[in-house]
Amino acid sequence: MSYQRDNIRRMAGYTPGEQPTDPGVIKLNTNENPWPPSPAVMSALAAIAPEDLRRYPSPTAAGFLAEAARLHGIGSDQLVATNGGDELLRLAITTFVPPGAPIGVAEPSYSLYPVLAAIHDSPVHAVELDGDWSLPADFASRMNAAGVPLTLLVNPHAPSGRLLDANAISAIAAALDGVLLVDEAYVDFTDPGHDLTGLTRRHDNLMILRTLSKGYSLAGLRLGYGIGPIGLIEPMARKTRDSYSVDAVADALGAAALADQPTARASWEAVRAERTRLIHALRERGFAIPDSESNFCLARVPDQSRQPAAELYRGLKEGGILVRHFGTPRLVDCLRITVGTPEQNDALLRGLDALLSP
Amino acid sequence: MSYQRDNIRRMAGYTPGEQPTDPGVIKLNTNENPWPPSPAVMSALAAIAPEDLRRYPSPTAAGFLAEAARLHGIGSDQLVATNGGDELLRLAITTFVPPGAPIGVAEPSYSLYPVLAAIHDSPVHAVELDGDWSLPADFASRMNAAGVPLTLLVNPHAPSGRLLDANAISAIAAALDGVLLVDEAYVDFTDPGHDLTGLTRRHDNLMILRTLSKGYSLAGLRLGYGIGPIGLIEPMARKTRDSYSVDAVADALGAAALADQPTARASWEAVRAERTRLIHALRERGFAIPDSESNFCLARVPDQSRQPAAELYRGLKEGGILVRHFGTPRLVDCLRITVGTPEQNDALLRGLDALLSP
Repeated sequence: MSYQRDNIRRMAGYTPGEQPTDPGVIKLNTNENPWPPSPAVMSALAAIAPEDLRRYPSPTAAGFLAEAARLHGIGSDQLVATNGGDELLRLAITTFVPPGAPIGVAEPSYSLYPVLAAIHDSPVHAVELDGDWSLPADFASRMNAAGVPLTLLVNPHAPSGRLLDANAISAIAAALDGVLLVDEAYVDFTDPGHDLTGLTRRHDNLMILRTLSKGYSLAGLRLGYGIGPIGLIEPMARKTRDSYSVDAVADALGAAALADQPTARASWEAVRAERTRLIHALRERGFAIPDSESNFCLARVPDQSRQPAAELYRGLKEGGILVRHFGTPRLVDCLRITVGTPEQNDALLRGLDALLSP
Repeated sequence: MSYQRDNIRRMAGYTPGEQPTDPGVIKLNTNENPWPPSPAVMSALAAIAPEDLRRYPSPTAAGFLAEAARLHGIGSDQLVATNGGDELLRLAITTFVPPGAPIGVAEPSYSLYPVLAAIHDSPVHAVELDGDWSLPADFASRMNAAGVPLTLLVNPHAPSGRLLDANAISAIAAALDGVLLVDEAYVDFTDPGHDLTGLTRRHDNLMILRTLSKGYSLAGLRLGYGIGPIGLIEPMARKTRDSYSVDAVADALGAAALADQPTARASWEAVRAERTRLIHALRERGFAIPDSESNFCLARVPDQSRQPAAELYRGLKEGGILVRHFGTPRLVDCLRITVGTPEQNDALLRGLDALLSP
């Protein structure tokens, strides 16, 4: 017999991107930063003592939170540290959504959102993005009409890379009846000047998700955090978060990573420069690509009748280059390509040229 | 306004044990292993490369699972790796308990259980332990009568240290209508020969929680795992678990820890020897202590009128020795004392002697 809850038995799990063990694979499929983490992170790793492992960690990841508070110029009570950004998404649902109430998302978006909703036994209220991946003007009012207590909005958008500016986010937060969680997993790669932190002091329903996975080259470490008003942060930090969800290693290495802004910022600048070059080169080859402020781009494959996107994906994979292909109707003719190092991007372009040559 | 769900707004969070930052404190309050982790763990830490941090980890913690499968002689599909044992508790609730259905526990027990139930908006169905901390004979039938889909049973029991043997657990699993999760956080310290792994092949409703926090001296790393039939493990591993919930460092260090059984076993043996000595010495001083098969003991303070347990706790703390004191009625006259190194236990006994001397 099955002991599972009905909603769990009915649902399918999340499918993570492929994580090949072969270090020779050029991995442009899950949006890691192509540059290594800060040397300060490796020094912090070398300084981990047996005692740091033997004892329980700080329940709040206090060292990391102090560094994040310094970086953003806010109090650590406006922050919660999580086991990757994914834990913050789950905590927001657990804390603000009664099971059965709908969770608001834009469609398409991060494919984990509907999985988390299904686990919670909540329907997804999905609002389709316009043709240029922009939000429809009535986005907030449609969420309100559906009684959505929590809206998840990834910005820059995935998989398009499109950015909503602070004024647009502020207007949505002001219009929404429920909580707005802006998933800023990719925000470090935006052009300089974009910063929503100040908005969380103006809207009591707005919080931001940050992660060290991309901007700080620490996807393997699982460390994210939330920024928001105390009314949203406190119940997650003190009630619904697993006790000790961030380990002693992540606490120490995360603090070291945030403290070395020059290394991180240099990687973001390098990604932006390569993003410009890569998108230009792909457009020259006929791919249609929206402007991206992230570390990936969404490339619509030209001349689908001759070479469908799924075949390009497989052809690249056979050549040792992984990109992401989604089977959903609006994305089936696209490849989502992470911006790699110059050498990786050159290899990608060569691979595409070989597959596309007549 | 508050955006919290009603059940979250009403509840109080979990209170973790004190985690002092002063390394001079003798810490006998949260049941860490007093001996350091294996040198192989520190070697695995030194071998972590920047690439291991930059990339996403194995979604399943495959290296760790392979080592755990080898250790227990089972398939890795009978295992799920979690961010500490606490994540497994949450996953079991999420997977097997519809919100509102009761969660079965013995009382007293691990104080996190009612907190997890409150987060899930489920009542706790608590069955009071007998005076000697044993389970009443009708434990399972009372769970069934209450319609409990999941029972959480810590064994060896916390805070008493009392162990139910495999036959007793098997009888409870056979009698329960729902799932039985045996929380074996402290099982490594039992006298040799106790092993429930085989039972999980006989009962489709029985799973076991293990953690590396205590037995392997890795509380700072947050790594636990579940052992059970595929029907229980698969939905947690593939559906309800956060993707990538175990980071690359924990995956590698956990595998190294399990692979070095001699170091771990030597620490368990040393803890057992000190447990015997400590309990004997405390009983000589008038404390009433049930036999413990764990790495702590529950000491009922003699002559409460002269020196209540809460005062002893405070007096020890002022002397730089932390033990655990619970405010609940059945435990208010007790101290839960972690078995430390011989030097730490001597310091504890000296501290108690000073406080108890006329």
